[in-house]
Amino acid sequence: MIKSCYVQVDRALWTKRREEALKRFLEDIEIGYADRDIIDFIKLVFTKRNVFTTSSCSGRITIVDALYPWLRDESYIVFKKHEPVTVEEVVSIVSSKPLHRFWLISSGPIIHFIAPGIEVACKVLSIAREAGFKHSGIISVSEEGVVIEVVSGTWTSFLLKDGEYVLVNDLNKVVAIANEILIEGKKRLEKLFKMFKEVDI
Amino acid sequence: MIKSCYVQVDRALWTKRREEALKRFLEDIEIGYADRDIIDFIKLVFTKRNVFTTSSCSGRITIVDALYPWLRDESYIVFKKHEPVTVEEVVSIVSSKPLHRFWLISSGPIIHFIAPGIEVACKVLSIAREAGFKHSGIISVSEEGVVIEVVSGTWTSFLLKDGEYVLVNDLNKVVAIANEILIEGKKRLEKLFKMFKEVDI
Repeated sequence: MIKSCYVQVDRALWTKRREEALKRFLEDIEIGYADRDIIDFIKLVFTKRNVFTTSSCSGRITIVDALYPWLRDESYIVFKKHEPVTVEEVVSIVSSKPLHRFWLISSGPIIHFIAPGIEVACKVLSIAREAGFKHSGIISVSEEGVVIEVVSGTWTSFLLKDGEYVLVNDLNKVVAIANEILIEGKKRLEKLFKMFKEVDI
Repeated sequence: MIKSCYVQVDRALWTKRREEALKRFLEDIEIGYADRDIIDFIKLVFTKRNVFTTSSCSGRITIVDALYPWLRDESYIVFKKHEPVTVEEVVSIVSSKPLHRFWLISSGPIIHFIAPGIEVACKVLSIAREAGFKHSGIISVSEEGVVIEVVSGTWTSFLLKDGEYVLVNDLNKVVAIANEILIEGKKRLEKLFKMFKEVDI
């Protein structure tokens, strides 16, 4: 039987998690692992008293080999870039044969915020929605904090190849649209950045 | 400046909203407006004391004329079906010219649950995740209730046509995969149904 997952947040534990997340973020920058387009935003978030971030992505274009684009475990990422892509980069992959199917996925930013309570979480949610991240929600509440997943709907997949069979007949168009979608996501991140600069949280 | 959106739920108001939602649901069934694949599930939800649903969809295949598949306002739904589609149904649309682009979208179930507090909302969230609705979250908290959006990631778009230009070269494959995705979503709804039968909420 499912038990309620709701518990009060333990502020001391939340603070400890915040410190760990900050340490990890600074290490990621140092080793060049951090997603460059989101570094300034995350730095800004860490200047706020009542919220921090864990995982974050500024938006990216991937090509995955999977039966369906949402799969994670039975899926192989064969290409990943946080900036616009060229047709040449995509062609070189499409010429090989996938185990399942090649999907080109253009996705917007995803950021996990951790708040010390429901009130702050709701405030983050409200800012996120205002900035165009309309698919955001509180995804868990535990003694470590309230987790808000901030996502935009700027997500699209393109089925490129099913086994040996190429399904799109104009990669130029697909790449152009995938890049437009990526850029739209980055614009919303820019808006979120501006709103966070002004907000007292 | 953004204000906190968090307020305590007013149980009397929540009960009033529940009654209105039930009335609307029963009317929708009567006029044949309700999505048939989800009626039994919604009926079950209305037997529970601490949760009700407002909008719900069992999953559907649509063809939209829009620049991007996530748009709502500048978008025209030219085809909609809550069951698997045939190639013939799609061909007849693709032969016409879109204002922008034709996207075929196969999406899983979406259900909005309204709980009278965070604890119940977290319980719903936990059940939803267990049933495979991994993109679910609490999307708002107001005096009328806590709104949980339950969605699965079983969503895929296929760009069929950009202006006059047809982009896919095998509609049979696209339709087959779109139908597989729709059915996967309906399976998860079945699982959610079974879990809700057993849960005391």
